[in-house]
This record gives sequence, C-alpha cells and structure tokens, in this order.
Amino acid sequence: MGANMARRLVAGGHRVVTYDLDATAVATSTENGSEGVTSLEELVSCLPSPRAVWMMLPIGQPTEDTIAALAPLLSPGDILLDGGNANYKDSIRRAREMSGRGIEYIDVGISGGIWGLAHGFCLMVGGPADAVKRMEPAFRTLAPAEDVGYCHFGPSGAGHYVKMVHNGVEYALMQSYAEGFELLAAKEEFDLDLAAVAETWSHGSVVRSWLLELTAAALKDDPGLESLQAFVEDSGEGRWTVQESVDLAVPIPAITAALQQRFRSRQDGPLGARLLAALRQQFGGHAVRRSGD
Amino acid sequence: MGANMARRLVAGGHRVVTYDLDATAVATSTENGSEGVTSLEELVSCLPSPRAVWMMLPIGQPTEDTIAALAPLLSPGDILLDGGNANYKDSIRRAREMSGRGIEYIDVGISGGIWGLAHGFCLMVGGPADAVKRMEPAFRTLAPAEDVGYCHFGPSGAGHYVKMVHNGVEYALMQSYAEGFELLAAKEEFDLDLAAVAETWSHGSVVRSWLLELTAAALKDDPGLESLQAFVEDSGEGRWTVQESVDLAVPIPAITAALQQRFRSRQDGPLGARLLAALRQQFGGHAVRRSGD
Amino acid sequence: MGANMARRLVAGGHRVVTYDLDATAVATSTENGSEGVTSLEELVSCLPSPRAVWMMLPIGQPTEDTIAALAPLLSPGDILLDGGNANYKDSIRRAREMSGRGIEYIDVGISGGIWGLAHGFCLMVGGPADAVKRMEPAFRTLAPAEDVGYCHFGPSGAGHYVKMVHNGVEYALMQSYAEGFELLAAKEEFDLDLAAVAETWSHGSVVRSWLLELTAAALKDDPGLESLQAFVEDSGEGRWTVQESVDLAVPIPAITAALQQRFRSRQDGPLGARLLAALRQQFGGHAVRRSGD
Amino acid sequence: MGANMARRLVAGGHRVVTYDLDATAVATSTENGSEGVTSLEELVSCLPSPRAVWMMLPIGQPTEDTIAALAPLLSPGDILLDGGNANYKDSIRRAREMSGRGIEYIDVGISGGIWGLAHGFCLMVGGPADAVKRMEPAFRTLAPAEDVGYCHFGPSGAGHYVKMVHNGVEYALMQSYAEGFELLAAKEEFDLDLAAVAETWSHGSVVRSWLLELTAAALKDDPGLESLQAFVEDSGEGRWTVQESVDLAVPIPAITAALQQRFRSRQDGPLGARLLAALRQQFGGHAVRRSGD
Repeated sequence: MGANMARRLVAGGHRVVTYDLDATAVATSTENGSEGVTSLEELVSCLPSPRAVWMMLPIGQPTEDTIAALAPLLSPGDILLDGGNANYKDSIRRAREMSGRGIEYIDVGISGGIWGLAHGFCLMVGGPADAVKRMEPAFRTLAPAEDVGYCHFGPSGAGHYVKMVHNGVEYALMQSYAEGFELLAAKEEFDLDLAAVAETWSHGSVVRSWLLELTAAALKDDPGLESLQAFVEDSGEGRWTVQESVDLAVPIPAITAALQQRFRSRQDGPLGARLLAALRQQFGGHAVRRSGD
Repeated sequence: MGANMARRLVAGGHRVVTYDLDATAVATSTENGSEGVTSLEELVSCLPSPRAVWMMLPIGQPTEDTIAALAPLLSPGDILLDGGNANYKDSIRRAREMSGRGIEYIDVGISGGIWGLAHGFCLMVGGPADAVKRMEPAFRTLAPAEDVGYCHFGPSGAGHYVKMVHNGVEYALMQSYAEGFELLAAKEEFDLDLAAVAETWSHGSVVRSWLLELTAAALKDDPGLESLQAFVEDSGEGRWTVQESVDLAVPIPAITAALQQRFRSRQDGPLGARLLAALRQQFGGHAVRRSGD
Repeated sequence: MGANMARRLVAGGHRVVTYDLDATAVATSTENGSEGVTSLEELVSCLPSPRAVWMMLPIGQPTEDTIAALAPLLSPGDILLDGGNANYKDSIRRAREMSGRGIEYIDVGISGGIWGLAHGFCLMVGGPADAVKRMEPAFRTLAPAEDVGYCHFGPSGAGHYVKMVHNGVEYALMQSYAEGFELLAAKEEFDLDLAAVAETWSHGSVVRSWLLELTAAALKDDPGLESLQAFVEDSGEGRWTVQESVDLAVPIPAITAALQQRFRSRQDGPLGARLLAALRQQFGGHAVRRSGD
Repeated sequence: MGANMARRLVAGGHRVVTYDLDATAVATSTENGSEGVTSLEELVSCLPSPRAVWMMLPIGQPTEDTIAALAPLLSPGDILLDGGNANYKDSIRRAREMSGRGIEYIDVGISGGIWGLAHGFCLMVGGPADAVKRMEPAFRTLAPAEDVGYCHFGPSGAGHYVKMVHNGVEYALMQSYAEGFELLAAKEEFDLDLAAVAETWSHGSVVRSWLLELTAAALKDDPGLESLQAFVEDSGEGRWTVQESVDLAVPIPAITAALQQRFRSRQDGPLGARLLAALRQQFGGHAVRRSGD
C-alpha cells in the first residue's frame, strides 16, 4: 500500500523520499518518481525541516523498532505519521513518547487496499490539530477527492480507533454477503447464477456496495469459487474490535460472529463438536461417525 | 413504491393503467401520466390482449384476494406479475395455479425503496422464460440502466427467493453498521463526530455502500439520533431467511443476530434477563435491582 | 426408549401389551413381562375398555399412519398417547381430530434417553385434564419418583411444546460445555486433563449437571475424543425451537448458535468462507489457500 | 465466601486464624471457631512455620496490595493461596514474584457460592505440586467429599484458568435456561406454570442441573419474576473468557452471546437500534417511533 500511496503523492506534485529495508521496494518506488534512500539516516538528512516522515509498516515490533531508530534522528517540530493498522492504545502511547521529544505524532488509519491508487484512499486521522493541518496537502492528494474521504477525528489514537471499528464493520459486512450467497447456493432447485445475483444487486438495490462489486468480480472469475479453500485469515483489527466491545460492554453480535466464523474456518474437526456427538451418544444412544469412517 | 414505478414506466414511454382500492392513490398516479381506473374489471377491459397486469400489494391476504379476483377476468396468454415481497413458496404455488388457467405468472422481487424513481429499481425475476422475455421492455425501463440491475434468475419462485435472501443480507449489513457506530459512540474520550465518520468512510474505504450514505444522511440530520426510539420493526423477509436457513441447515449467524437484535429492541425488561439476575442472586448472593428501584 | 418404558411399567405392576412392526422388538419386550401382539387389531382387541394406547414412534409419517390405522379400531372414551417428539402443532391438530371421534388424545414429551429405565423418565404432558388424570398411575410409575418429574402443563400441544423448548435448551447446554472444553483443550501450555475437569466440576460447582456427568464419562473413556468425527446430527426439535422463536419474535441467541454450530459441523469447505477468502484477496491482495494446496 | 470456608475448615478440625479489614467480618468468623486477629502482622506471627495464608479478596488492587503487604512478612517455605477470581495471567506473574522470595503461590478457583458451606466447595487448583500436596488436608475438608470436587490441574495459573472457563460456561448455561423460559412464557395460549416446568425438568430430564434447581426455587418464590429488573451485572470472568477465545482463535458463540445479552440488559435505547430505525426510514419510508411518543 505504501508504494501506491507514494505514487499517488508524486502524481499529485509532492516530493517523496522512500526508504525500505527491502532495496527492491525502494527501486520500484523510484520508478514512479519518488527518490530512494538506503537508510533512515539518509532519509532524515535529505528532508528539509520541519520533516514529515510517514511509516507504512507491519504492526507490532517493526513499527516499534522503526520509531526507536527514528526518534533520535528527528528534530522538534518534525511530524511522524503511522499509516499502519496499529492498535489505537499503542498510538496513544507513542504519541505521548514522541511528544516528550517535541515530535508531533499522527495516527492515520487508511482504507482502500490495492485499489487506493486509482480510487484514492480513505484516511482516518488522529493527533494534534496543528500538525494535522500541516499535513493536509498530502491528505487531500491521497484521498479520493479534494475535500472528501479524509477527516481529523480527534486526539492521538482517534484515527486508529476509527480504523479499528471500520475493520470490524468490514468483517461483518463480508460475513453478511457470505451468508447470503451460501443460502443462494444451497437452494439447489433454483440453480442460481451467483455472479449474476451479485452483479444485479450492485445496481439499484439497497445492498449495493463496493464489497458487493468485488463479490461480483470474484464470482465472475470463478463462479463456484472452486479454486479456493474455505480458510480465512484475520489480521488483528477484528480481534481488537471484539476486545474493545468487551471492555466497553457494548454487544456486537454480528461483528463477533464474523470473527468467530473466520476462526471456525481454520478448525478441522474441533473437539467441541466431537464432544457434542459424544454426548448425544451418551444420553440418547444416537449414532456417531467414527474417525476413519 | 408502485406509484414511483408507474411514473418511471410512463416516463420511459410505456402505457400504464392504474387501479388501487384507494381512489387517492389512483389520482396521484394519473397526475404522472398513467390512466386511472376504478375497478379490476375496468383495468382488464382497457388493456389489449395479451395483457400484463402487475400487482404491487401488501403480502398475504391482499395479494391472495386480488389474484382470486383477477384470475377469472384474465385470458390465456396474459401475464400476471407480483412485485410485492411474497414468500417464494407462495409464488411457486400461485404460478402453478395460474398456469392451470393458461396465465403466465412472474415473481419479481424489487429493491430500491423510495429512491427507485430516481436511481432505477433492482429487479429479481422468476418465472417462465418466454413471459419474462415479453416483459423485458418494462424491466429495462424500471432498472437503473438498460442492461443492468434486473435479471431472470430461474423458474417461478426464484425471483422472490433471491429477494428474500437480499433482505436477509440487508438486515445484516444494517446491523454491521449499527454495531460499528455504537462502538464509536461508546468511546466517549474521543467524542467522535459520527456523521463525519459515515461521510468519510463513504469515500474510498472498503466499507463504502449505499446504506452507509444513508447512514451519513441520517446522522447529518440528527447527529445523536436523539429524536428516535430504539424500536426496530421487521417486515417478514428476514424471518423467512432465518427459517429457510434452518430448513437448509445453513448457518447464518450474522443475519440471525440482526433479526434477533430487532426482536430485542422491542422487548422491555424481558423475563430471560430477570431470570439471569435471579440466578446470580440465588447462587452467589449478588445484588439485584428491584422493580421500582 | 419404548422398550425401557414398558419394562419400567411392568416392574411397577402395570399390565402392558406391546406391538411393533419389528417382531424382534416385540420379543425383547415380552422377555420383560409385557404381552406381545402381532397387529394393531390384536393390540386393541386384547385391551379392556376404556383403553390406553401409547405410541412411541418416529415423528412424521410413521405417527401419522399409525393414528390413521388406530383411530377406526378405538372406541369413544379410549385414550391415545403420543410419547414421541411430535411437533406441538401436529399434536394440537391430532387431538382435535381424535376428539371428533370421542377419543382422548394426550401429548407426552419424554426426556431421559437410555437412562430412563434406571432413573425414571421426565414426562411433560398436554391434553384433556380428565384423561390425564386417568393416566396418572402410569405417569407416576414412569417418572423418577411418585410425585416429581411429571406434570400436566395444559391443553393439547402443551406437553410437546414444553418438550420442544426442553430440547432447545438441551442443545444450548451441550454447546456451552462444548465451548468450555474446547477452550480448555486449546490452552496447550496447561496440558489440562479434560476428564478431570469434568469430574471435578461435577461436585460442588455452579455448573454441575447431568450432562456434565455424561461429559466426564465420555472423556474418561476417550480423553481426547479422538475416536469420533466432529459431525453432529440434529433430530428436529432444535430447529422447531428456533422457528418458534422467530414466530414469537423472542431472541434466543445461545440456542440458535447451538443449532448453527451443528449445521456447521456438517459442512465441508462452505462457499461462504471461500467467498470471504476471495474478498480479502480482491480488496487487499491477501494470500489465499488454493484447493489442492 | 471466605467466612463460609473458614467455618467449614474449623468444622473439619483445622485451626483457622482470620483477618479482615472489616472488624465485623472477623467477629462473625470467630463466632464459628476461628481465631481473629487485627493485622496482617499479627496473622503471620500467630501462625507456625511453614505457614499457609489463604486470601479471599476482591480481584485487582485489593489482592495486589495485600500480596505486597504480606510478602515481606512471610518466610521461605510459606504458602500463599489466592482463592479469589484472579485473572490467570496475574496468578502466573504473582507466582513468579513469590517464587523469587521462596514463597509457594497457589491459585485456587472456587465455585459453590453461598451454598458451599453446606454442599462443599469445588476447588480448581494450580501451582507447585509439593505445596499443593501440603495443602491437601484443607482442600479435602473444603471439597464436597474426601476425594472429589478438587483437583490440581497444573502449574501456576492453571487453577484460575479452569475457573475462568468454568464461569464462561456458567454464563452460557444460565443464558440457555433464560432463553428457554422466555420461550415458555411467550407462548401465552398455553399459560404455562414456569416454576412447575423447572421443577419437572429437574427430575429425570436431560437438562437437569443445579442451576435448574435454583431456577425452580427462584420461580417458586416469584412466579413471573416481577419483583426484579432485567438488569444483569457481570463480574469479569465472562469477559476474560471471551478475550481468551479471541486470543486462542477459538469460536465460542454461546458463551459470547451470554455475555453480550448481559451487556444488552444494561443498555437503554442503544444508538445502534436507533440507527436501524433511521435507516429503515431512509430507504423505505418506514414509520419510526419518535422519542416521547
């Protein structure tokens, strides 16, 4: 995603300097007009003060380590942005730590995936108001249009909090469609064309959405999705959303079901289900399927 | 919805004759260029053979009674369409009954609500192929564009089946957003602007959709939705979807949760929750809230 | 279950005449002191008036056919009991039909499974009060003790309604334990002895129950339940419970989850999960597992 | 619970010295044969080495503070037990900290509530094997019988982990019954006697349990539970269970639903439901209930 953002920024007239642990990624980026460097030191030294350094990194240790390496290189008044999917609690902590050094820390939740280059990115921003204001030209270029698709939602952490909830909602929307298409497929007597349903619903219906357009595209390529295993990963924000709902005592059954169905997709013959079968046999003498049957 | 459909058909160059039990509804419709009649007999007699009669009626008895009244007036080769939210099993039965009289019966699930006049309607069609083919000019006019947004999905019942699942998905999508905005509102320290979130997510994000645009509109009008009670009706298709999932043995936890949360919104102090409080007191001596506290 | 009931009745001093389509079942029963017959006609003729005929049959057609065959053989004042897991709506209808012939119809939901012979059966009774009163000696013998474990809950259908809900609750209780033991097993660093947990919880804890004792027994026999497949059948009452909850607009998320987890246990690579994987790839370029990987 | 445990220990021939911040609690305890002291120092000094000090405290800060105060007073070889509902992660940490001082730390999850005095307590134990062995006489006295109802499940944390899952299961069992009784109550035409159902099910049925007996007792006292508000607290272990399931990627839909229904019972007119009503109005023109209607 970082490379696409750099490309969109360069196309929008911004100067971009790129650093990546992987030299190939830097090379790719410079093809698109950004300048490549080979170390964080070089990155910082070739940016004029006050600097804006935007991290696009895997969550957790890579982000933590990069901040630790960058902090001593930056100067008061510089802005450090985290555009990854950080936990908002980490963002609050990091902003406080950077603030002690006079560095402005901005958390930016970003949605748009691999389509952001073409469509623009949706940016959910948290952090100090004046620093956010200074970054506005970049946000406007990255966003789908001049004054839509990005917003400064509040203090440090607010951006990643809104992004976390966004991803929780995303899980539940995906699950909603998945259940619908499963019901359509299960009604064998109608032999429904699932791709046609997705395509038709995408025009004029109450359920039209971008995810539905992607559903139509996926089903058009592979009508029964036979090429795929029913194995669904999750990358963390859905888990945080459920944990936050527990902390806040807010019931979110659809989002939770969506996360749990992903967990279930990765289980093979779970013990719980075997216990149910065992119990039915224990009290009712019901038949069970034996392993190896 | 019927009036808006008539308007869109007239605007598209079709001749439309309108009948309604309520003379006011007929009057409204004729203002928009359709011809009004005062009885089913008159309706049938002023249409040339083979006729196409399109019902837009509340489900259940009104549809049943109207079919009973219409059937003897129609001739073999005429087409009878049901654009209401009929249960697909009723549509299969009615198609069979009409078929015995030589009448072609088409079930059309329609989505688009009060916005269909402007945006076009999404049409999900079931029934005999030749009859559907004959109706295509009307479908094309009603749909959002010439060749999208309507589809003939299969034999009788297929249209209303796809519409039923559509509405089940709609419930779950709505619930997904509702949960997300509840989590946003519950995070009081961020004091988030919910309308701004909905508006921002509507541009470039993975969760963008038409329902999200409506969410943005609703929150813009009334930022905390303080004017509304937390009382959510359902109109039947969500229930059928859950019942169908039980018949087909297909788990649909998100859609089911969405339906159940609507039921829950209409309960006041349910016995189940009072029993939980009673049990906590019974085994642990935990405090309870007494009625009238 | 019928054979065990006959045995308990005979042991309690009642005269029992047994008929079964399967002559072996009759033979087994007579070993225990009941008299065997080879036809419904013989059954009816060897019982003195007013008769009590108790059906223990698979639900649906077998029950329906047996009632159709029995009704002409019975006399006004006779009592016909259905101890199967009939849908309460069928029981209401059948009671009305029998009432037209002067036959008293009693619906009896029975719980206790294969353990009822030893422990007594729990009997949930619906039907006309006087007929129920006349059957009380049999109910008292079948029940766990003289005056507990059976109850006349109301008019025709009430017995099977209470039994239906009983089974819905049973599904959810089983699911509750299944989830707990899955969490215990998943915590690999503690290497917990699941059978010991079940056994320990069975004494003094808030979660002790008969199902937990069966869990302990099942886990003692086969500590990891490795001999079983994670394939869980359902026999209908759970489905009716969910459908009833939809009709009554009462949210029952735990019972519904229990039913849906059984459905899920019988799915292999469901389309819904494959669609989720496809969508993650579509919007985020996330890796998927290909069939055959 | 602590007072009842002391009473049971004294009755079992153990010497017990009691300390509580609240002098009244100490007074109550000494009535039952334990010796009262007025400070932790006094408590420690009047116990012979090696000592066994058993904490029964509210979770969190009170436990943390008491350990901090006790640790310097204890000697190597002493045993410190936590019988509260601590988070198992805290117990692992505390055991490690105490181990550094030569103190043996045992985590004991205890179930049985206010009934433990009479029935015995269920004890779920984690910690070093030799220390657990030394405590066995006390465990045997507290447990329902000599050799049942307590178990050493593994290393430090294992006791509180098993107790946490126990409470998660407890939530789901309670929810299972709550849903069943709600369905029974909602079937108005049968006018069912809920207390009679609970009582009947308690004998011979598959769903019999101690919680069901408590249900019967609660419904006997107050048949419609009219005296109570539908407001259900939770005391933390259910939340930890759900969070653990998220960490372990184990789906537990029934336990989660049980927790979420408790959360829901404490909401009044939640925003999510108001948003659903708003959306139905937005797309379909459906009627809403206005605040104050």
